[in-house]
Amino acid sequence: MITDIDAKLLEKIADLTGKPVGAFNIRKDSGCEARQSTEHIEITPKTDGKQGIDIRIKPGTKGEQCHIPVIISKTGLSELVYNDFYVGDDCDVEIVAGCGIHNSGCNESRHDGVHTFYIGKNSRVRYSEKHYGEDAPGETGRNVMNPQTIVHLGENSTMQMDTVQIRGIDSTKRDTRFYCDKGSEVVVTERLLTHGSQEAESDMHIELNGEDAKGRVISRSVAQDDSRQVFHPVMVGNSQCFGHVQCDSIIMGHAHIESIPAITANCPDAQLIHEAAIGKIAGDQLLKLETLGLTPEEAEETILKGFLA
Amino acid sequence: MITDIDAKLLEKIADLTGKPVGAFNIRKDSGCEARQSTEHIEITPKTDGKQGIDIRIKPGTKGEQCHIPVIISKTGLSELVYNDFYVGDDCDVEIVAGCGIHNSGCNESRHDGVHTFYIGKNSRVRYSEKHYGEDAPGETGRNVMNPQTIVHLGENSTMQMDTVQIRGIDSTKRDTRFYCDKGSEVVVTERLLTHGSQEAESDMHIELNGEDAKGRVISRSVAQDDSRQVFHPVMVGNSQCFGHVQCDSIIMGHAHIESIPAITANCPDAQLIHEAAIGKIAGDQLLKLETLGLTPEEAEETILKGFLA
Repeated sequence: MITDIDAKLLEKIADLTGKPVGAFNIRKDSGCEARQSTEHIEITPKTDGKQGIDIRIKPGTKGEQCHIPVIISKTGLSELVYNDFYVGDDCDVEIVAGCGIHNSGCNESRHDGVHTFYIGKNSRVRYSEKHYGEDAPGETGRNVMNPQTIVHLGENSTMQMDTVQIRGIDSTKRDTRFYCDKGSEVVVTERLLTHGSQEAESDMHIELNGEDAKGRVISRSVAQDDSRQVFHPVMVGNSQCFGHVQCDSIIMGHAHIESIPAITANCPDAQLIHEAAIGKIAGDQLLKLETLGLTPEEAEETILKGFLA
Repeated sequence: MITDIDAKLLEKIADLTGKPVGAFNIRKDSGCEARQSTEHIEITPKTDGKQGIDIRIKPGTKGEQCHIPVIISKTGLSELVYNDFYVGDDCDVEIVAGCGIHNSGCNESRHDGVHTFYIGKNSRVRYSEKHYGEDAPGETGRNVMNPQTIVHLGENSTMQMDTVQIRGIDSTKRDTRFYCDKGSEVVVTERLLTHGSQEAESDMHIELNGEDAKGRVISRSVAQDDSRQVFHPVMVGNSQCFGHVQCDSIIMGHAHIESIPAITANCPDAQLIHEAAIGKIAGDQLLKLETLGLTPEEAEETILKGFLA
């Protein structure tokens, strides 16, 4: 049963209001709340004893969406889920994942999700996931999410991955890996907010293996209060390729941010660029908004919203 | 005795032709070839059993130079040398180190040099070191240099460090560390060329500890043939400070370059920036020079010279 709290979580993490269009699988508290396959997108539970689902998208599938949100409303629940995506050649699809925890008690609730993509040739995949946690009023349970995303990107295929940690995740260890064939292109946009005493670690490993493969990472983060963030994006060029990593972080309060990117060229025709910056909100930006009538708090909030938009 | 070969090495690594002006210490094949102190700069051999010298620069010393080159003309020689620099307050001095190996045989010759600087307040130090190796005609001895540089930079002092690996060093592991007090500023310029099957690793660790400390690293490298380079510059901001790391590498042949910088902000008023790029020489740059009448080889050489200048 989808409660009001569940509905709010689903809207926050997967922009869902009401029943999704197309294929979907809604996982709630380690069970299947609802599932629907379509003519082109088949969703089946795993049969190898592992938790999770297989998503098979037929070659030539275009303009379809697939929603696979996960929600947890219990305290003390811990799960390890494997979702495998088989995307055929010549597809153009959108996959919306996401995980929300509403922790009803004082114990740790934890979702470890392993998403593996096998993407064929000439396909275009947009993949988005949002992570959000909250405690029931008066409760203190920790919310933990460790998403792992492994993508095998076929020839001339593209993947756009948008991954967002909205707020309320006490601890996260993100692991994202791309293996890019000839002519393929990946764009990863990561946005991450931590507050309180939260900890976030994001490892990213992008291998540009095929000729003319392209990789781009745009990582933006805000660390507030006493929170800690560590970024470790790695771009490896094994052929004639182009890779660009850009990390920008806003540091506030007594937060700690570490950005440790790596670019590795194993081929003289690999062109790799990295940029990173850590700093606080510029004083003149705040001042400008304040002269427009915003309070200091509103000015700060406006800037952070724009930065993480 | 300084031979013709030695004289050429000294010119290459320390721009020395003839006897240096001011204080100097010329180390040859693990012995002291010549030494001179001045009124303000005292050079004494270590008395604690270690190889090396102490360099004491009196407070207020201005406009003086100190040369401490090291040359090795033997094959199979291996040495570990400690040079400690005590620079008083209110100094303005230039220190020229550098190491050259002319390997006369088929064995490995190796210089491990540990330079530690204790720099007082309001001082200005320019420090340069050049590393160069060559084999006698027909010989194949490996030339190894592992320089370690540790700098304690006092309040409002500045250090400009220029470190260059010209060529001919088969293996190097460079370790550079700066601890920067309030108002101090360090600028490190690193230039490094590897060729053949050479290997180079450069670790750099700059801690901006005091308020308004500034750190800047400019690293430029060229990796030719099958050579391998790994860079690991780390800039840590522990106070209101500004740090900037810039790494540019040209990759050629079948070389391998890895650039793994890290910026770490432990204070919300730390502003840290990193940029890195790896790529080959731009084709249009080559073309432009060729249209001016240069051969492809000359065009390449001209660009590399400019890049490492």
